Amino acid sequence: MDPARAFVKDVKRVIIKVGTAVVTGTDGRLALGRLGALCEQVKELNSQGFEVILVTSGAVGVGRQRLRYRRLLNSSFADLQKPQLELDGKACAAVGQSGLMALYDCLFNQLDVTSSQLLVTDSDFKDPDFRKQLSQTVNSLLALRVIPVFNENDAISTRKAPYEDSSGIFWDNDSLAALLALELQADLLVLLSDVEGLYSAPPGEPHSKIIHTYIKERHQGEITFGDKSRVGRGGMTAKVKAAVYAASAGTPVVIASGFATNSIVKVLQGERIGTLFHQDAHLWALPKEVGPREMAVSARECSRRLQSISSEDRRKILLDIADALEANEKLIRIENEADVAAAQQAGYEKSLISRLTLKPGKILSLSKSIRILADMEDPIGHVLKRTELADGLVLEKTSCPLGVVLIVFESRPDALVQIASLAVRSGNGLLLKGGKEAMRSNAILHKVITGAIPDTVGEKLIGLVTSRDEIPDLLKLDDVIDLVIPRGSNKLVAQIKESTKIPVLGHADGICHVYIDKSADMDMAKCIVLDAKIDYPAACNAMETLLIHKDLLNSEGLNDLVVELKGEGVTLYGGPRASIAFNIPRAHSFHHEYNSMACTVEIIDDVHAAIDHIQHYGSAHTDCIVAKDLEVAETFLCQVDSAAVFHNASTRFCDGARFGLGAEVGISTSRIHARGPVGVEGLLTTRWILRGSGQVVDGDKEVVYTHKNLPL
Amino acid sequence: MDPARAFVKDVKRVIIKVGTAVVTGTDGRLALGRLGALCEQVKELNSQGFEVILVTSGAVGVGRQRLRYRRLLNSSFADLQKPQLELDGKACAAVGQSGLMALYDCLFNQLDVTSSQLLVTDSDFKDPDFRKQLSQTVNSLLALRVIPVFNENDAISTRKAPYEDSSGIFWDNDSLAALLALELQADLLVLLSDVEGLYSAPPGEPHSKIIHTYIKERHQGEITFGDKSRVGRGGMTAKVKAAVYAASAGTPVVIASGFATNSIVKVLQGERIGTLFHQDAHLWALPKEVGPREMAVSARECSRRLQSISSEDRRKILLDIADALEANEKLIRIENEADVAAAQQAGYEKSLISRLTLKPGKILSLSKSIRILADMEDPIGHVLKRTELADGLVLEKTSCPLGVVLIVFESRPDALVQIASLAVRSGNGLLLKGGKEAMRSNAILHKVITGAIPDTVGEKLIGLVTSRDEIPDLLKLDDVIDLVIPRGSNKLVAQIKESTKIPVLGHADGICHVYIDKSADMDMAKCIVLDAKIDYPAACNAMETLLIHKDLLNSEGLNDLVVELKGEGVTLYGGPRASIAFNIPRAHSFHHEYNSMACTVEIIDDVHAAIDHIQHYGSAHTDCIVAKDLEVAETFLCQVDSAAVFHNASTRFCDGARFGLGAEVGISTSRIHARGPVGVEGLLTTRWILRGSGQVVDGDKEVVYTHKNLPL
Repeated sequence: MDPARAFVKDVKRVIIKVGTAVVTGTDGRLALGRLGALCEQVKELNSQGFEVILVTSGAVGVGRQRLRYRRLLNSSFADLQKPQLELDGKACAAVGQSGLMALYDCLFNQLDVTSSQLLVTDSDFKDPDFRKQLSQTVNSLLALRVIPVFNENDAISTRKAPYEDSSGIFWDNDSLAALLALELQADLLVLLSDVEGLYSAPPGEPHSKIIHTYIKERHQGEITFGDKSRVGRGGMTAKVKAAVYAASAGTPVVIASGFATNSIVKVLQGERIGTLFHQDAHLWALPKEVGPREMAVSARECSRRLQSISSEDRRKILLDIADALEANEKLIRIENEADVAAAQQAGYEKSLISRLTLKPGKILSLSKSIRILADMEDPIGHVLKRTELADGLVLEKTSCPLGVVLIVFESRPDALVQIASLAVRSGNGLLLKGGKEAMRSNAILHKVITGAIPDTVGEKLIGLVTSRDEIPDLLKLDDVIDLVIPRGSNKLVAQIKESTKIPVLGHADGICHVYIDKSADMDMAKCIVLDAKIDYPAACNAMETLLIHKDLLNSEGLNDLVVELKGEGVTLYGGPRASIAFNIPRAHSFHHEYNSMACTVEIIDDVHAAIDHIQHYGSAHTDCIVAKDLEVAETFLCQVDSAAVFHNASTRFCDGARFGLGAEVGISTSRIHARGPVGVEGLLTTRWILRGSGQVVDGDKEVVYTHKNLPL
Repeated sequence: MDPARAFVKDVKRVIIKVGTAVVTGTDGRLALGRLGALCEQVKELNSQGFEVILVTSGAVGVGRQRLRYRRLLNSSFADLQKPQLELDGKACAAVGQSGLMALYDCLFNQLDVTSSQLLVTDSDFKDPDFRKQLSQTVNSLLALRVIPVFNENDAISTRKAPYEDSSGIFWDNDSLAALLALELQADLLVLLSDVEGLYSAPPGEPHSKIIHTYIKERHQGEITFGDKSRVGRGGMTAKVKAAVYAASAGTPVVIASGFATNSIVKVLQGERIGTLFHQDAHLWALPKEVGPREMAVSARECSRRLQSISSEDRRKILLDIADALEANEKLIRIENEADVAAAQQAGYEKSLISRLTLKPGKILSLSKSIRILADMEDPIGHVLKRTELADGLVLEKTSCPLGVVLIVFESRPDALVQIASLAVRSGNGLLLKGGKEAMRSNAILHKVITGAIPDTVGEKLIGLVTSRDEIPDLLKLDDVIDLVIPRGSNKLVAQIKESTKIPVLGHADGICHVYIDKSADMDMAKCIVLDAKIDYPAACNAMETLLIHKDLLNSEGLNDLVVELKGEGVTLYGGPRASIAFNIPRAHSFHHEYNSMACTVEIIDDVHAAIDHIQHYGSAHTDCIVAKDLEVAETFLCQVDSAAVFHNASTRFCDGARFGLGAEVGISTSRIHARGPVGVEGLLTTRWILRGSGQVVDGDKEVVYTHKNLPL
């Protein structure tokens, strides 16, 4: 949880201010759906033991709508020909107030909650006895679990618009809410608005973003307010004024959306939504400055510097990182052991603890692989294509870093080292978001690695995102992050793919097939199938479905294979044909990844049926044919449209290290950009560099295009 | 509009059935927010003149909640120790009914709508007098604009669960709604559910999809129903049964989501949401079969065949297309002229009509460029990398088509020809979605082109999506479409990027900069700036911002440039420094694309400031430096991180044809996959092909990896 939101655990009494825009919307129509949902939230909080007080606006709007309708009913046709006078605001308030309160009463009644009405005016507050009485009344109501609903008594108030006189005690419902927050000693004031919170600039401006924690010293004067909303008296300026006032007097305030689902409940659970105003906000100012957005921006700046230094200097950084890791091996092991001990104590499962542990020799092998990476050909600035467009006009397509890459990984601290060194090699900025269970290991590894990055580049090239910024927040930063690489469970990958506009490099499913053709050498088939299934059943490149040519049914080789699979402990599930042929249970679906000692088996007619099956039920990861007939094999290799297609080799070979790519950032089943096992090249893109001597297009009247390929 | 939804324009009387899941949700709690929003919709329809009848469920749930609470209040601590008897369903119904009706009454009251209650039982309907009376009563209520709210009179009904006896006249609120639809001669019945409509299979299964129009002959028996929802008696099976019954008797039915915003209003506007049941549904069966999903699936199958034929055969297809276009030139021109004439009559703007028109000679130049494309080196199946992993185990990285590409284009029928030929060249399936204004041109071009595709591949390789399937529907097909290429306005591109999970190739903004360094040849700078701005101001590669080194201020060359820009009719807007220096109005924002004879000008300190400015306000499209100082130029070329970076050449050169890429599918500012002007290569991806002789991984114990690069 954001430390700035930790105070919510002590909140008991909360005031919720419901703005005009929430009650009636910008079209002036009563928003019954929103009000109903609001009452559901109040009920929820009330039954959780919170003391909830409402301050509502919207009576004037409700009344105006009603009175217009009433006037229409009472008008003759002749009346309607006359110019229509604007309705009296006081009359609207009087009519609207009773309607609005009746509505709250009805809604709350349905939820077995009792509400009460408290209408106050500015001048009431001038009387100290009134203040005392008000407090007592509210306390009594709250003790009975009744919801007090406040509104300014507009119908009889003698104050006049624009209400901005500084002499007043309050001048709109925002400041009334702030005043009540202090009078009634609320622990939190929530101002519901028609936007998510306070933004740094009007939307549409580049880099305009929501401010989650308002810091007076930093934000005052920095924020550009847009036009205030057209309904109600308030607008964002009034809200901020009221919020600053209440917060500085000791009651924290959150401006949040009254349109979003369950926003008040989320605020009270400490979720980082809306904008918080808190008198101690400046204390949390420092961590805010290195929030993920700022980290991404810094990482991009550093990556630009990393690109501009010489290839030899980049190599040197990698060698320094390798040395630093070795020099700090003891320290790293101590921190890692602390993580492992904590995980054991917390009762994490064994497989997680095994992935968390940096085994003896691991640091050495990591630093060794970094030195190999350092000695690889520099991938940045490669001229991939050089063309003379016209005389003296030369175009180059050159490789360059993507920009900023976010890695979300679970457990394995060695992944941090691998990916950080790949990022340096490819010139990218990097944000790392690791799992809590590896917190100390990640912190020390990050410190050691960034310590080896020279000031000419800047250690902010690699940012370690600490746990207070949750993954959903990071995934929103599509304007400053270019690629996300999830390293973890399929569930993690699927969730990330579902919830971000940033391109994701990875694969959600690994439903790999082995097809045994009738021409297969059955001994070879047996070896490949056994390896593909049992070498590492939890791997994404393990076989999940075995397809068998129909002519092999009842052959000795196939029977052997089935017996051996069962003998190794593999549970078989069958498609409609195989379940009968082998007397095995029916598979629930062909589109299923077991990730364990189990697989689906089906009998099919020929290679074309195999291709169709894979196309329909596969996940385009890795698929294999076992066949002696080369023509059949080529048909399979040509027509199966997966990231990796194998002939007579185990699906387990689909791996960056086995493919000789050096370090691997992951395996991608996307068709866009890198596909299959991805090494450095997946972190690169290209730029077009054109060098001329003053050429212009001018309608292409004079340019003589040569389009001559030049040597690289 | 989907022709199947055209009937809604004649709908006057509509019955809305509100299911238990909508009223109380799966947690059994009253969903006030949803009910409020429902009443807002009913009010809206009522005031639009529709006759609205509600059939509501949920009373039992509401009553159960209330009675539990009541029992708790009345219980002693000792009472609560005893096992709690389940509450009597009839009692729940009696209590819930009055609560639910009071709620509807209150909600409608607030909206100045009057509602009424009609409780009926199964046995009532056995009496013909009852039926007649009911009709009359409802007619009277509707004539007075009162909303009749129906419910089964559960509290006194003597029928017993499971209510499935076929003797009944109705057996749940779904069948009651269907019965009432016929009795009361409704024009439409809407069954609100907790899902979007009827799906072809439970979610999670590959290719499970919503059925927009239920066709009994096709769907009966084909649909797999999941478990029925845990609340209420109905579930999807009951809904479909009721819907089939009412539809076959003449009242169309739509099953739609009661959770989505405004779904009833949308159904009545003819939007293709939910599942429609209509007695004439089979008449619309044929077009349904070639809906966009089916088209995408067919296109993928044809693309697989296209990949498997020989390179020479693919070349032949392109040559045949070129011949066919020339042979049908007259026909194409006639259809195009018809489009142009219609557009003129409709008063479309000139620029659109100009883009719509196929000028004389255009067909010839298109077919010429197709022949050039045909003679290009075949891009499919290129071995990009060949590695020996181990003895007898050879890995190849080969180029292959992406799969299925969707092109959304406005106006220009020539884009159809270009992109179709690029798709054939690159082996991809294609869906074309053109603008209505070019309907006839697109249809004839599509017919001529697909006519030239041999049966071995299949003419469904290229599908022309007709206008009834709107763009938002197409953008949902992320499981069968691999890439979207929008060709049209920035607004179109931005909208598409915002609303799809399919990767989009394109650029939303083209905020291109020219930076004039202090070392620039000012004559050259003048030529480049003028060309970059005025050669084609509406182009995405036109200059939008001119950055000038501060040392050039007050120089003769710069003054000349400014005078000439103004003389050519370019309106200048300045940043803080330039607006003072040149006495020109302030630019609203540096992040602005004029697309017209206007640009922003600003004075900056040096090349680093220029790079920072471009980084912050640019759109990473094309940026240019004019400088004699080569070191400064290289800094700019190296550090400006845009798709295209130019030295001493006009930004207008950023174009596929000028870059010599042949036909262009668009310009991409994405960093993932193709970047800058994109030709054939943007439509390709890679696959890894591994050929072995039975190798297995087996824990890497025996494999000796060689990782030897082999010649290509």
